Amino acid sequence: MSKVEEKLLQMGLSLSEAKPPVANYVGTKQSGNLLFVSARVSEQKGKVGVDVSGELAKLAARDTMLYLLAIIKEDIGDLDRITSIIKMQGFVNANDSYIYLPQIIDGASELLIELYGENGKHARTATGASQLPYGATIQLDMIVEIKE
Amino acid sequence: MSKVEEKLLQMGLSLSEAKPPVANYVGTKQSGNLLFVSARVSEQKGKVGVDVSGELAKLAARDTMLYLLAIIKEDIGDLDRITSIIKMQGFVNANDSYIYLPQIIDGASELLIELYGENGKHARTATGASQLPYGATIQLDMIVEIKE
Amino acid sequence: MSKVEEKLLQMGLSLSEAKPPVANYVGTKQSGNLLFVSARVSEQKGKVGVDVSGELAKLAARDTMLYLLAIIKEDIGDLDRITSIIKMQGFVNANDSYIYLPQIIDGASELLIELYGENGKHARTATGASQLPYGATIQLDMIVEIKE
Repeated sequence: MSKVEEKLLQMGLSLSEAKPPVANYVGTKQSGNLLFVSARVSEQKGKVGVDVSGELAKLAARDTMLYLLAIIKEDIGDLDRITSIIKMQGFVNANDSYIYLPQIIDGASELLIELYGENGKHARTATGASQLPYGATIQLDMIVEIKE
Repeated sequence: MSKVEEKLLQMGLSLSEAKPPVANYVGTKQSGNLLFVSARVSEQKGKVGVDVSGELAKLAARDTMLYLLAIIKEDIGDLDRITSIIKMQGFVNANDSYIYLPQIIDGASELLIELYGENGKHARTATGASQLPYGATIQLDMIVEIKE
Repeated sequence: MSKVEEKLLQMGLSLSEAKPPVANYVGTKQSGNLLFVSARVSEQKGKVGVDVSGELAKLAARDTMLYLLAIIKEDIGDLDRITSIIKMQGFVNANDSYIYLPQIIDGASELLIELYGENGKHARTATGASQLPYGATIQLDMIVEIKE
């Protein structure tokens, strides 16, 4: 078992099965040592500030990152091959008056930092969206650096 | 004529003339073997779920990809120089209740896969936007890998 | 003083102090010679088309780019190390009927081109957002190429 998955277990978390893409794209695409990871959305549905609390949305962000890690594992075989988390982009399905978007996306960022330490620290963009696929609360994509 | 343009013709499609950027940016910018392609919006205007059907929006996504290909051709001379489609980002101008955003962006993804086969498969993010430039229905950007 | 900061001074502008990230991410992350710069939002708050004019929003876009440059300087030491601006992504907090989003983001693009000339020209995506962190009017991130 990879070190990253051991850490997940110690945190009481585990990778779900990798879900296939919901439309005509692939889970990850590599260019050089960069792996571009397609966006995934949360199981959690609804709009922050209307149906969903900030706290629940932060948890949904963490769980969405687990989906991204599951698809990365499926595509590259071993999460320990990730040497650096480069950039994450997070969208929050939020109403026009909900402004604490960074704190929600922290749910995903904190997980990456717990798993990968200093190398898990990443550049980030956290933005509001009027709508996300299937009415999801959170959408995340990212770019990571991998080794052979 | 490039193989990609021959395939387009067989599909009954063709590249439009490359439109100049609408503001102070360039159509593409290269770094190493990666070409970053600026976002383009659809001629089709209006909001999905209000003025525009999902079917029409999907067609608009395909046509917007043709604009991106036209600008790439103008900048690098030959679409056969594209060796891999790495990442596409699509925004759909949609109202708060329209949730089938991935199916709309498939209009662009399917075109790329028809043109480039296995290498045309790409990582992707499909998101809703409250507004797009000029009230357009679709906005697409992408990153592709090119050879000399 | 770097050439870029000299040009800023000639324009009557200067770098503000680099603001620390507002949540659990880092200001920039490097991969090879690419530097991924985290999104920053404008001090200016409010929605274009409701509380904020297009002109004020364009100025806010320029000022937000100054924050990005300040954080890049803090992280890499010298803005003259930037050899090329590759890609900028801008979000405008706009209501559903405001469509001149590219002209607003030009506030940031024009600054980069004044500072870096031909190398400052970049690929770009300018999009509307229903909400941005802390109710800000503008959000910008970018990817730049740097030398040792």
